[in-house]
Amino acid sequence: MYKEKILNLLRLSRTAYFSGEELARKTGVSRTMVWKHIKSLERDGFGIEAMPSQGYRITFEPDILRQNDIKQGLKTKVVGREIHLFPETASTNTLAMEMASQGAAEGTVVIAELQTGGKGRLGRKWISPKGNLYLSVILRPNIPMHKAPIITLMGAVAVTSAIRNLCNVRVAIKWPNDILIANRKVSGLLTEMSAEQDRIRHLVLGIGVDVNMEQDSLPPDLRPLVTTLAAEAGTKINRTELLREILRQLDCWYRAFLNNTADVLREWEKLNMTVGSRIAVSGAGETLEGLAQGIDEEGRLIVLRDDGSTRHVAAGDVTIVKGKK
Amino acid sequence: MYKEKILNLLRLSRTAYFSGEELARKTGVSRTMVWKHIKSLERDGFGIEAMPSQGYRITFEPDILRQNDIKQGLKTKVVGREIHLFPETASTNTLAMEMASQGAAEGTVVIAELQTGGKGRLGRKWISPKGNLYLSVILRPNIPMHKAPIITLMGAVAVTSAIRNLCNVRVAIKWPNDILIANRKVSGLLTEMSAEQDRIRHLVLGIGVDVNMEQDSLPPDLRPLVTTLAAEAGTKINRTELLREILRQLDCWYRAFLNNTADVLREWEKLNMTVGSRIAVSGAGETLEGLAQGIDEEGRLIVLRDDGSTRHVAAGDVTIVKGKK
Repeated sequence: MYKEKILNLLRLSRTAYFSGEELARKTGVSRTMVWKHIKSLERDGFGIEAMPSQGYRITFEPDILRQNDIKQGLKTKVVGREIHLFPETASTNTLAMEMASQGAAEGTVVIAELQTGGKGRLGRKWISPKGNLYLSVILRPNIPMHKAPIITLMGAVAVTSAIRNLCNVRVAIKWPNDILIANRKVSGLLTEMSAEQDRIRHLVLGIGVDVNMEQDSLPPDLRPLVTTLAAEAGTKINRTELLREILRQLDCWYRAFLNNTADVLREWEKLNMTVGSRIAVSGAGETLEGLAQGIDEEGRLIVLRDDGSTRHVAAGDVTIVKGKK
Repeated sequence: MYKEKILNLLRLSRTAYFSGEELARKTGVSRTMVWKHIKSLERDGFGIEAMPSQGYRITFEPDILRQNDIKQGLKTKVVGREIHLFPETASTNTLAMEMASQGAAEGTVVIAELQTGGKGRLGRKWISPKGNLYLSVILRPNIPMHKAPIITLMGAVAVTSAIRNLCNVRVAIKWPNDILIANRKVSGLLTEMSAEQDRIRHLVLGIGVDVNMEQDSLPPDLRPLVTTLAAEAGTKINRTELLREILRQLDCWYRAFLNNTADVLREWEKLNMTVGSRIAVSGAGETLEGLAQGIDEEGRLIVLRDDGSTRHVAAGDVTIVKGKK
């Protein structure tokens, strides 16, 4: 707590020095304790210059996620009520599912700097090196089961909005759970659910965003298919700010979802690139080609086939055959 | 294996004696081993009379479930492929969910003689003393999420059919997951599910049947609401035979479900007592009264209200206000 106070003071200026005495007085600890906290910040990766007779100033902020930085002034109502931050975990979704089954509160967020067993849809992997965002949110909506797929669309709306608000990139949603920049994946969502026959016990909405990782952290075959926000924006992204914006957008859109799912579906349509395109969707052993016309009230993709018939697709992998005009 | 062979021989007659020599010859083990297996059967609870110079005969069969007795000639295709039998577990559903998430095969059955933390719907308890049946079946149907609730109805059809085939009692289904005799509960089902947004990973269909337990194993307040097959039939029920019939019916109806859910819904309607009754259904903070008209293609109860409007109810507790004529 004192460490955070000292950090916040130092952050007030990047050029001025704060004397040990001033820091001690303003935080209410001894000068020895100030010095210990400064050392601790250095161990966290901060560059801190100590100038004799002048004091301390920050010369470098490491690209790490810190509980206090995430929470400060976050002001969300549900999402982020509790935040658990880990340097490394197998999968934030797996951990969040476990915490949820042990009673963790709705809105609890699990974040990791690194995943050793990150998961994608259909049992696929999500390559999860350092430098990106990996988070999972525990939700306990009192909704009928058939509305559960809309949670994923809601998540995609929130993440896309957050990226658009903070980064200068042209990002859009590909049904059902990918977020792309110029046809390369930059983010994906994975919703997992524990349910009884007629009741959702809990959902975990998992989000991965490729932010600052080096392209060579990826296997070569994935590189043409995947991009990062930093690569597209041409500059490193402040992950803490992006994470905070994602949490804010999730909080806002989750409450919108509970209130009226139609609002979420309408926003999704605005942010998506699938509807209006000619697509092929594969899954359940068949491939279907046609024009993606829209999504229905359960979040299924409506495909108009060449024979004039219409299909509502609940699951599958979409390939864009020809983009919208 | 030799023990089972000896048991099967002894079971051929309840009056004739089998000499140790005969048992040894027919099973291909030494007479000392025969004697050891006989002792082992006695430890299992069998009453075995040893008459000098005549041999052995069974005088008493204990009411216990035995792996071999369950499997012998079962001939199911999916359900019961693998059977795990436990003297005691917290909850067969919890155990089966764990086994499923670790890759247990479809059709794996988990059975316990006793549950210390038996579960009912909506976080309720299922009182699980000795003498009854508690089983959970792992299923991995490739079906859209909205069809999952029909699995519970399928299970109710199978259990009701099995009871009707074997016991002389008037049993019927109360929507969604109870099986009653004259308005007292004799069986209940609890389906649990692990899913991604658009794909069911696995389902566990849990079944509890009150068979032979003593009425005083129940808390006093439950006694008027609950009955057992033995109490209703006026005689102890062979649990092994009933279990085998339940597995056979599940195998048959699960495959029917995969083939055409409409067949399951039609059979459910025949076996149920809710449709045609005036009911009150409570859940999600409201109570709805009206005539139960039927179930829709997703297994939801169709309720005709007094104002002429119709509601499709996905979840809730039903009270029969007035039975069908």
